[in-house]
Amino acid sequence: MAAERDAATVTAVTEPLAAWCAKVTAADAPEAVRAKVALLVLDGLGCGLFGSTLPWGRIAADFAASTGTGAEATVWGTDRTVPVTAAPLANGTFVHSFEFDDLHPKGVLHGAGQVVPAALAVAELRARGPADGVRPDWLPAGAVTSEELLAAITVGFEVGARIGVVTGATQLSRGFHPSPNTGTMSAAAAAGRLLGLDADRMRDAIGIAGSFGGSLMAAQYGAMVKRVHAGRASQAGVTGALLAARGLTGIPDVVESPYGGFVHAYTGLPPGSADSVAADLGEHWETLGFTFKAYPCCGSNHTSIDAYLSVLDEEPTLTPDRVEAIDVACSTLTYDHVGWPYEPTSVTAAQMNLQYTVAALATDKVMTVDQFAAGRIADPDLLRLASRVHVTPDPAIDALGREHRHLVRVEVRTTDGRRFRREVAEAKGRGDRPLSPDDVRVKYRDLAGRVLAPDTVTALEDDVSALGTEKSDVAAITAALSVPHGA
Amino acid sequence: MAAERDAATVTAVTEPLAAWCAKVTAADAPEAVRAKVALLVLDGLGCGLFGSTLPWGRIAADFAASTGTGAEATVWGTDRTVPVTAAPLANGTFVHSFEFDDLHPKGVLHGAGQVVPAALAVAELRARGPADGVRPDWLPAGAVTSEELLAAITVGFEVGARIGVVTGATQLSRGFHPSPNTGTMSAAAAAGRLLGLDADRMRDAIGIAGSFGGSLMAAQYGAMVKRVHAGRASQAGVTGALLAARGLTGIPDVVESPYGGFVHAYTGLPPGSADSVAADLGEHWETLGFTFKAYPCCGSNHTSIDAYLSVLDEEPTLTPDRVEAIDVACSTLTYDHVGWPYEPTSVTAAQMNLQYTVAALATDKVMTVDQFAAGRIADPDLLRLASRVHVTPDPAIDALGREHRHLVRVEVRTTDGRRFRREVAEAKGRGDRPLSPDDVRVKYRDLAGRVLAPDTVTALEDDVSALGTEKSDVAAITAALSVPHGA
Repeated sequence: MAAERDAATVTAVTEPLAAWCAKVTAADAPEAVRAKVALLVLDGLGCGLFGSTLPWGRIAADFAASTGTGAEATVWGTDRTVPVTAAPLANGTFVHSFEFDDLHPKGVLHGAGQVVPAALAVAELRARGPADGVRPDWLPAGAVTSEELLAAITVGFEVGARIGVVTGATQLSRGFHPSPNTGTMSAAAAAGRLLGLDADRMRDAIGIAGSFGGSLMAAQYGAMVKRVHAGRASQAGVTGALLAARGLTGIPDVVESPYGGFVHAYTGLPPGSADSVAADLGEHWETLGFTFKAYPCCGSNHTSIDAYLSVLDEEPTLTPDRVEAIDVACSTLTYDHVGWPYEPTSVTAAQMNLQYTVAALATDKVMTVDQFAAGRIADPDLLRLASRVHVTPDPAIDALGREHRHLVRVEVRTTDGRRFRREVAEAKGRGDRPLSPDDVRVKYRDLAGRVLAPDTVTALEDDVSALGTEKSDVAAITAALSVPHGA
Repeated sequence: MAAERDAATVTAVTEPLAAWCAKVTAADAPEAVRAKVALLVLDGLGCGLFGSTLPWGRIAADFAASTGTGAEATVWGTDRTVPVTAAPLANGTFVHSFEFDDLHPKGVLHGAGQVVPAALAVAELRARGPADGVRPDWLPAGAVTSEELLAAITVGFEVGARIGVVTGATQLSRGFHPSPNTGTMSAAAAAGRLLGLDADRMRDAIGIAGSFGGSLMAAQYGAMVKRVHAGRASQAGVTGALLAARGLTGIPDVVESPYGGFVHAYTGLPPGSADSVAADLGEHWETLGFTFKAYPCCGSNHTSIDAYLSVLDEEPTLTPDRVEAIDVACSTLTYDHVGWPYEPTSVTAAQMNLQYTVAALATDKVMTVDQFAAGRIADPDLLRLASRVHVTPDPAIDALGREHRHLVRVEVRTTDGRRFRREVAEAKGRGDRPLSPDDVRVKYRDLAGRVLAPDTVTALEDDVSALGTEKSDVAAITAALSVPHGA
């Protein structure tokens, strides 16, 4: 209890953060934030709908449906309705199913996988009422408005990004998977907002969910459980919010508690490190730092993809049989992360591997989810071409510093003796080269179109793009995500 | 992936551990282990049945029941049957509901709260079949035998204790709550065993559940979520086992992965620290290190309780009005942990506080759950007596070293000028002063008798005591835990 008695010397963080989450409206957010959040939702739904078709997505959905019956919320891309706590487990898994969802680089955080499934599940609960037909007095009356939904999702993204900025890099270096751990509290904020929690209950919701993290980074080496992390965190947030609504108390200073709070336990950073989490709320918007991924593979491959695409711009007819070798010089960090010799062990391994990724791009001349289909990753032609992709760590690139770790120098040599050289420092989707809103919409249409009928793709895009206005219909959004069996 | 490629230099831990969990039989365990495990189950059920009556237990049970319908497993102490993943959330919360459950001091781990609810829920699933009536091909046919149940629970305790010994103290100092984090894997081992997982699937189960920890130690300052940690971990284990049965892959080296494995992420200890987790399996039994708590309050209060009980032995008629003061000299660690000035903020605070605990004991002359009833903690007479309990940190005790942190010197002064002095180094229930099997049974009967009819208390005790033999009936155990509404 020593730490508790010292708490007066620590700046309050969770209390003002929760109070802000409970009261800020969508109208309080600048237009740039509102537009960013709508795009994040669109991108998340596209990733999620595609994820519903993948093997690990199907396992998560089957499991979620087996954990109890009750028609409260939709499993996206299916005709299943399941309890409000089960849907986020499936849908969150879908969103993070293919290394294609958004990224907040400073917060080392994917946001949509936790926030969007939590918010939409509670929105459906509000509209349908609990499956047992008894509407508890703590459940707000009436369906969720578009403005409420935008506010809830916005606080979800903002909470995650702010806590991520303080903890993400250290979580990662300590071996924790930052997105789901931080994202428990994002999801709790979003769900809690739609449950109408007041400031104290919101504090409980965040203070329960923050104690439900624990995802480990060793899952990155091919374990399917990595995909489930996001779903479990989204479920943890909804669980925290529902338990808080029922009167369970959480850790009141879960973010900043000097002993055993989230920042302390996951990072060991000194008291005070958490202060920025609640600074300038409503003035500074960390949500604007979220980026959209251009390619469905590890971010360390993206500069090489851009380099090869640039070669294709110059030589559109270049076919793989004319490629003698592709030499990639990269940082040692990138080499360790993605430069290892490719072996076709799993889709995840293909997405993580630079040799495979460049070979698939050189073969297909585009970089979408199709290049990582399970049926492609052991293709003998691709394996042969991958063996001609030579990745080498370059001390000269290391010397530029960690922030240039993604810089690559790529040389493509052709069988007729030509050489194409490219240097790419920053990939499309990052830093000064963000995806445009139109890029995000094109990406969404490709992904959603694999599951939804064309007019539903369009209608859903329109409703999500207008989120927060009267032109957007929350019921239409959730209805669009339900796909009749066999459709 | 650098870490993955270096993995060949790391001793395999998870693989042999999982293989052992999948195949060891109850008959392979020495009689002392079998008897210990049966007592641990009995103690856990007693704690759990009492926990079902507490406010946070009721919230957890109501919430669990709201997460989906499906009659697969019993919520102990009630007539509710809920899905197999929901029951452990409630029952695990019950077991850890009153700081009265078992403790493995070396592993800094309470075991039963994670292991027993997970095993019994899967045993019920095996007997009843899934609620949807479709028995999947991966679910073993037939009900669980008593021998199977004992084997499953034994591997659960052993896995937790072994991982706890390596990680528990560091988790605690880093601000993580060791029991539930380590216990995810205990519960997965127990549940996986009853799902008949082979060695590879067992490895997946442990490798999924280990990534579902994350409980924070700041919950100790009164947040109800601390009670839920055990339930959530038990649920995580069942979830991991069920996902593995369905084909989801886990982290194959979740315990020892040099980057982002459980030991690395939670402790930062060097590779190799995890080696002992899988050493001498079947030869050395860490399960024998579990202890039983004699009093339902923080362990740091127990030596003072023993001191005062010893004074009562000498002076049985000593009443609180005759107590002028009780002076307790203790280590600074104990002072910081439990020696702060009592304020009646919550039952948890009363259980954590030395002044209150000693005052309640001096008043009632016994130390059971009744002394921490919600209606007692603000009793004006108790508050007055608590203010006469003077706790002082003593550098001379600090100088004895950390292993003597629980040593206290207690002086009781009476209004007629008498003085009783006691020094207690080790509390009943710890080290050389373990509770006897009869002590554990008396404790169980008191707790279970608050919920079950007297003949059910006896029948359940008989079935659990005979666990692993033909005299024990698994169906009778689970049936005894179901209490008709209003009974």
